[in-house]
Amino acid sequence: MKKNTYISLPVIKRLPRYYRFLGVLRKNGIEKISSNELSRRMGLTASQIRQDLNCFGGFGQQGYGYNIEQLYNEIGKILGVDKNTPTILIGAGNLGRAIASHMSFSERGFDLIGVFDKNEALAGQMIKGIPIRHISGLYNFCKDNSPVVAVLCIPEDSAKEIVEQLVNLNVKGIWNFTHYNISADFPSLSVENVHLSDSLMTLSYQLNNKD
Amino acid sequence: MKKNTYISLPVIKRLPRYYRFLGVLRKNGIEKISSNELSRRMGLTASQIRQDLNCFGGFGQQGYGYNIEQLYNEIGKILGVDKNTPTILIGAGNLGRAIASHMSFSERGFDLIGVFDKNEALAGQMIKGIPIRHISGLYNFCKDNSPVVAVLCIPEDSAKEIVEQLVNLNVKGIWNFTHYNISADFPSLSVENVHLSDSLMTLSYQLNNKD
Repeated sequence: MKKNTYISLPVIKRLPRYYRFLGVLRKNGIEKISSNELSRRMGLTASQIRQDLNCFGGFGQQGYGYNIEQLYNEIGKILGVDKNTPTILIGAGNLGRAIASHMSFSERGFDLIGVFDKNEALAGQMIKGIPIRHISGLYNFCKDNSPVVAVLCIPEDSAKEIVEQLVNLNVKGIWNFTHYNISADFPSLSVENVHLSDSLMTLSYQLNNKD
Repeated sequence: MKKNTYISLPVIKRLPRYYRFLGVLRKNGIEKISSNELSRRMGLTASQIRQDLNCFGGFGQQGYGYNIEQLYNEIGKILGVDKNTPTILIGAGNLGRAIASHMSFSERGFDLIGVFDKNEALAGQMIKGIPIRHISGLYNFCKDNSPVVAVLCIPEDSAKEIVEQLVNLNVKGIWNFTHYNISADFPSLSVENVHLSDSLMTLSYQLNNKD
């Protein structure tokens, strides 16, 4: 597959959406789709879709459309959902537990292998078959199991210290639910932020500024 | 305060970040800040910051910088965090409970007044002092309490039916944790989507496509 050298962030951010939509079509037994039909369903223009998919070498055939199974698998590969990246979760409060229980890590290319919290009272409790460990065991666990990704569900004030430790332990990516600006201090890490309160405030703005 | 008539979505999406950063500065007792310093801390260019804040009439003074308290309060007002919008949560599974327990709704302009689930076994349990109600009571509750916003933490396949019901009950905004594409079917609703699995797949892409 021919890849363009530079793919812009907005295109990358749309790939999971393509993957989801194609996954639904595939589940419904649909075999092919035109860019026009895909555009109607996704609320993007057809030319946008053709442009996006061209970034990755293009999977369409003129007059036939896209083969859904093939496109789904290719985008999955590009996204790395066929990987099995060892992942730990740090912070087993309400949010951490919900993320661990709710999210299908394995379907997205991640393998959740450890859960840590600083609260000793939680140690030994199980989430999805994984025991919660006290944070003091992080160093040894990482030396033994080499996690590549950490999910951060901890208060912002302890985030910097933890990330520093994780970087020294060779963690390469963070799924960040804190407000700590990781990329500013650790530009080499792959970081994906989920700022729930920003999203809620954006909704508030929309509600309060309807025409 | 002079407002431009059209403010682009990317600017709006940055406002909560300004609000957060200014909140931290304010908490630390800092009274003013230049756009250069704000840009260094936020990882945006100074001219971007000046442009963004100009959309809302501008709060800076040449040679002085921005008054943090004033800017914080003004952006808060623009975002509507001083509002008290009646809000319900639908879906009290792992994710719904975590959102209800974890999120400071009142600090973002929302008042969580009701929680619903289709699981009868949950009815009567409390989340943050709010009893979980069976979904069959949604109609009467909305007639009596007129919620304006609903947080959706339910499976995608029941989402369309619920949103239809909510629209008929005068709900105006949805904080959507499902993958159901609400805006396609209900363009008049204010919708803010949180697609956790898309975010996780974007992280996967980043990890697997480092230069």
